[in-house]
Amino acid sequence: MILQIDNVEVAEQGLLSLQVAEGRIIAMGANLLCPPQAERWDGEGMLLVPGLVNGHTHAAMTLFRGFGDDMPLMEWLQTRIWPAEARLSEEDVYWGTRLACLEMVRSGTLCFTDMYWHFPGVARAVEASGLRALLGAVMIDVAGEDQARACQRMAENFLEQSRDFSERVQFTLTPHAIYTVSRNSLAWVRDFAERHGLRVQIHLSETQQEVQQSLQQHGLRPALYLDQLGLLHERIILAHGVHLDDEELDRIALRGATLVTNPVSNMKLAVGGTFPYRRAASRGIAMALGTDGAASNNSLDLFQEMKVMALLQKHAEQDPTVLPAEEAWAIASGARAAVLGQSGRVAVGEAADFLLLRQDMAETTPRHHPISNLVYAATGHCVDSAVVAGKVVMKHRKVADEEEILQQVRSRAQQICHESTTP
Amino acid sequence: MILQIDNVEVAEQGLLSLQVAEGRIIAMGANLLCPPQAERWDGEGMLLVPGLVNGHTHAAMTLFRGFGDDMPLMEWLQTRIWPAEARLSEEDVYWGTRLACLEMVRSGTLCFTDMYWHFPGVARAVEASGLRALLGAVMIDVAGEDQARACQRMAENFLEQSRDFSERVQFTLTPHAIYTVSRNSLAWVRDFAERHGLRVQIHLSETQQEVQQSLQQHGLRPALYLDQLGLLHERIILAHGVHLDDEELDRIALRGATLVTNPVSNMKLAVGGTFPYRRAASRGIAMALGTDGAASNNSLDLFQEMKVMALLQKHAEQDPTVLPAEEAWAIASGARAAVLGQSGRVAVGEAADFLLLRQDMAETTPRHHPISNLVYAATGHCVDSAVVAGKVVMKHRKVADEEEILQQVRSRAQQICHESTTP
Repeated sequence: MILQIDNVEVAEQGLLSLQVAEGRIIAMGANLLCPPQAERWDGEGMLLVPGLVNGHTHAAMTLFRGFGDDMPLMEWLQTRIWPAEARLSEEDVYWGTRLACLEMVRSGTLCFTDMYWHFPGVARAVEASGLRALLGAVMIDVAGEDQARACQRMAENFLEQSRDFSERVQFTLTPHAIYTVSRNSLAWVRDFAERHGLRVQIHLSETQQEVQQSLQQHGLRPALYLDQLGLLHERIILAHGVHLDDEELDRIALRGATLVTNPVSNMKLAVGGTFPYRRAASRGIAMALGTDGAASNNSLDLFQEMKVMALLQKHAEQDPTVLPAEEAWAIASGARAAVLGQSGRVAVGEAADFLLLRQDMAETTPRHHPISNLVYAATGHCVDSAVVAGKVVMKHRKVADEEEILQQVRSRAQQICHESTTP
Repeated sequence: MILQIDNVEVAEQGLLSLQVAEGRIIAMGANLLCPPQAERWDGEGMLLVPGLVNGHTHAAMTLFRGFGDDMPLMEWLQTRIWPAEARLSEEDVYWGTRLACLEMVRSGTLCFTDMYWHFPGVARAVEASGLRALLGAVMIDVAGEDQARACQRMAENFLEQSRDFSERVQFTLTPHAIYTVSRNSLAWVRDFAERHGLRVQIHLSETQQEVQQSLQQHGLRPALYLDQLGLLHERIILAHGVHLDDEELDRIALRGATLVTNPVSNMKLAVGGTFPYRRAASRGIAMALGTDGAASNNSLDLFQEMKVMALLQKHAEQDPTVLPAEEAWAIASGARAAVLGQSGRVAVGEAADFLLLRQDMAETTPRHHPISNLVYAATGHCVDSAVVAGKVVMKHRKVADEEEILQQVRSRAQQICHESTTP
């Protein structure tokens, strides 16, 4: 099956036609002949751009959107989030993830890196949504060796199960953080990931407290501790990375690890620092942008997130030229983080993961600078249609199962959160 | 003509009906009988909230959206904005303001405080859009006394003309800033405003440079200098207010002046400080939220702006409890700034200026906390319909003249900006 889109503007390439087959872009040009059996689509008035990539989220936490804001971090976790999470079933996680995928596709995100419990539920939701994701087996062993072993068995088990899913579901290991996973378990993660060629996600240096604890317990700052364990490499994705000194950044650059910044979550939870964009960029460190979960953001819209990312860096550096629109767009589309597997380019041979954006909206008129409009003026609502691996996942803002997803989440969220706050 | 809206949820008041006549809400209740001649509207599934109030903008600068971002402030002004502004006709300003009004109504702003040239063009655009605005006569006299006198004549002239417009157009004086308006002209503003009961808008303490210059030239920090001139009073609206010390805040509180914070613009232009929300709030200072012009934001969506306002304060104070959602909402709806004339309340007797919001959107599901959803998760795209002074200005996202406005701005913006950069 061939899909041909005509008369579409491709960012920086002008007006052309584009053909898609077997999940890839097979041709682009001004005068493409349309094969008779092709599905044909008039893209007039639309701007075609690569899909955005959410480098760090906890998708199913849409269930907890607005369930406790403006609270101190530990009080929020202890009185709201953890009791509610303890009640989640795999089916709850499935529907929470469906909602996240719905929100993401509606705001232009076609690939995401997720860290959450109940891998099979998350993976089924990703399959059903048509998106791509890096998912994983969460590991936390604060309760001791039994918990560690259980997490290891779970990871082995999920890796097996992951083979039943399409290539859009990519299995990773997701140890939670260096302060919730023991040295032994992190060594197990390193070896297991090495053996199976898996990518690894971990929260790193989100708070100053984590840095202090690492110095006390390991005599090393977090990134150097990871390096000592052999976990700082090209397959690791480090989420947050707020409190990193120059030595850590040098090491991250040397090892080819990837940093994912989450500016809205960092500001909302007031983690007491700013992602060191300029120092990281000057070292050529791979970077991506994440929303974190909807409980601490509370949106999954990367259009808004990339604006805040750019604003926060200009503010922190007291320099309006830092992180210009083109760079914000490149980071948000995955072009600066090869580990996520999305090139952020629209070209023949690339995966057919792209968006058609409306250009007739008040907020993006006039068009002095299309990329500036996308970064500083648009929201995810400019996305008209989306294609992942050559399949249309949203057409003219219609997404499959939308009504059912909203209904399921409304009733499940109310039940879970009501029960978890009822003594 | 009576408008009755049934089955609508009013924030914190539950499901009810609401009647509007002669620009005001005349009845609210569970079982309102609908008069036979009334226009009836089913609000099922909608949330009714007060319209938002943009406390500081330069509406017509939508023409320059994206025309120079990520640049140092003075280079941006000197090479882009000023040359382009010099070419603007009243008709250009009319259409630029129409676009701003279109963007504002589509994102829930029904009243705005504007500072720009060509008052008659701005006022006509406000009339045509159906919105409310505080408009004015800009005053800058850096060129000397002739310019000062010309600005004074213009203000007198515009005050006369303003009587031809409806009560939705409120005339104000808008001296640009203390560094662009002489002491004599500010005294003239004080007297003229006093004589005619006019409100006054001015930029204040946006940059540290302004503070230093004020100290050098007047021996006083900016707010104290304004007070010395007799311009710090209940009818003055101070835009930005980033660099204010405690003595200035005490004086602002004492005099009952109003501060308007513009967080996105401040971050984007990297003005080197953060609006002192906590210190201002603790003194009970009146406050509003503004977007600044679209050239330095580049959006006029107050939903996004209030999120950034709350995030920036939490970040600056390293405290997630600062500026909670309810307070952000109150500030954005004008409830904390009486001078703007909008109560931010939905009640019998109040002006019928309100929004109907969709509640079936992915990004605001589930509904643990409706106000949190509006502040942290929604964008202006949740606005379905809008009523100003009892008249429907947007119904199901349809606004009058939309196509023509976009077309006019596209061609005018290209012409102006092209000419201004052509040697």
